[in-house]
Amino acid sequence: MTIKQVRVYSPGSIANLGPGFDVFGVALEGIGDIIVLEESPEPGVKIDVQGVGADKIPSDPEKNSSGAILNHVIEKYEPRHGFNVEIRKGIPPGTGMGSSGASAAATTVAVNEMLGLHLSDRELVKLAALGEGAVAGAPHADNVAASLLGGFILVGEDWDVIRLDAPRFGIVVVVPDIYIENKTKKARELLPQKIPLKDAVKNIMHASRMALAISQKDGKMFGSNINDRLVEPYRAAMIPNFWDVKQAALDAGAYGCSISGGGPSLFAVGDNIYDIGDAMQKAFGDIESTCYHTRPSNRGTRVI
Amino acid sequence: MTIKQVRVYSPGSIANLGPGFDVFGVALEGIGDIIVLEESPEPGVKIDVQGVGADKIPSDPEKNSSGAILNHVIEKYEPRHGFNVEIRKGIPPGTGMGSSGASAAATTVAVNEMLGLHLSDRELVKLAALGEGAVAGAPHADNVAASLLGGFILVGEDWDVIRLDAPRFGIVVVVPDIYIENKTKKARELLPQKIPLKDAVKNIMHASRMALAISQKDGKMFGSNINDRLVEPYRAAMIPNFWDVKQAALDAGAYGCSISGGGPSLFAVGDNIYDIGDAMQKAFGDIESTCYHTRPSNRGTRVI
Repeated sequence: MTIKQVRVYSPGSIANLGPGFDVFGVALEGIGDIIVLEESPEPGVKIDVQGVGADKIPSDPEKNSSGAILNHVIEKYEPRHGFNVEIRKGIPPGTGMGSSGASAAATTVAVNEMLGLHLSDRELVKLAALGEGAVAGAPHADNVAASLLGGFILVGEDWDVIRLDAPRFGIVVVVPDIYIENKTKKARELLPQKIPLKDAVKNIMHASRMALAISQKDGKMFGSNINDRLVEPYRAAMIPNFWDVKQAALDAGAYGCSISGGGPSLFAVGDNIYDIGDAMQKAFGDIESTCYHTRPSNRGTRVI
Repeated sequence: MTIKQVRVYSPGSIANLGPGFDVFGVALEGIGDIIVLEESPEPGVKIDVQGVGADKIPSDPEKNSSGAILNHVIEKYEPRHGFNVEIRKGIPPGTGMGSSGASAAATTVAVNEMLGLHLSDRELVKLAALGEGAVAGAPHADNVAASLLGGFILVGEDWDVIRLDAPRFGIVVVVPDIYIENKTKKARELLPQKIPLKDAVKNIMHASRMALAISQKDGKMFGSNINDRLVEPYRAAMIPNFWDVKQAALDAGAYGCSISGGGPSLFAVGDNIYDIGDAMQKAFGDIESTCYHTRPSNRGTRVI
């Protein structure tokens, strides 16, 4: 029996998580995208985007990460049919919550299931990352691996990732209502080519402790090592009131706070995420924002 | 009853361990210094140095880390006696095996014991590090904390350190018979002020995995993440045949190999440390070397 339709859910994620630039990622509970993949008698890929921020996502398969993944699969595996894709966005795109990564992860799992490709985790990560990278800039595994596998991710070389169950701790993500043209590209461009060695040492110190904290199931140790000298000081420039919002989170009891992925959202880790979120939204002043109260999801992308 | 004499043993250590520059340290089994601390009716500090490389260590208390520590203690706690110190070196000084750190750790524990100071671990680390730093350059906690507490050390801010039991894996340290004037200072001067951001990302990736490996008791994962882009490429210049020796270690089956502390020793992690050591010594060519076959010590400094 051929599978004619597959529905897949993929969670959003936070990449970097402070000191772990391009290395750390964590999947988020309660926020995600759904992909409905269908066989089509027509060749090629047709995409329909619905949901949150759908107007910001191109349905042209050449400019869409799902399209990039499916076109790659068509070329490599030559299925006897085309694909219709319905993308139901639950994750606002362009905010730093792994929106494109989740759609890429969901599409990858959907097509793996439909065609019975039996891809390994590493192959899934690679395919999803290349798909995301084809439209969003350089391919990176941090968001897609977190969305695919759930939990906490330590990116390695050559699409190798380590996945760990994350302990339970509160996360609040505050998304300011600002629009940054070419955000992902701009976020990369803000970074210097070279950074002080002593700043790298601090990031190594804190990132190592965060990895250890996950292993030891210690949410407080995890949160209180969210200190980043390599990326945050530079990217803060594109987020109005960044330092005030961060300070408000810490003053409200957050263990740590930094930029979520490429921004412009901020995330904070703590116990009292409702208070922390309120304080952060207030510190954004005249800038409207949306608050997501969440926690790590140890479940990744799955057929639903 | 007053304690008139205290004998203390402190193990050697490897700092940095590849990607964890100024952050990681591990104590070593079977190699260490002994300090015999005695009350003296004379005020001040008298030091006698014996053992391996004793001629390279000044017995002038103003230029000796034990002297710096004891003078600090005399000033702060005003004991009614002075100190005689006998330093029995088992760790060759100036080789990158934490020789000065071990003597500083042993002295700190000895005086803490003799005067009943009841210092916390953090205070012990701080006192030993300041003592070592007073004569060896900037104070660093990596070697002294490993010597003091044993196991694997993750240095933090303000003399806070995390100490973990290290799993059992083989370590070989090969000490080339070369003399580098002002080695610690030179080793620091070889480092650039700024380094590429992408190199920092690689170190964060590998250092995080090493911390995780310790927590998961995985010696192979620990060793195979000994990849350093921030320090090794620059300090390699002061070690003749460095790249050949490193490659020989890897070819002989080492999981990883890098500079031990500030060098000029190299260390390698693996199962067959005798074969690995032989290969490394051979690759040093005409340069004579000494080989230490060891493993992590989960016992730190102790009264004996």
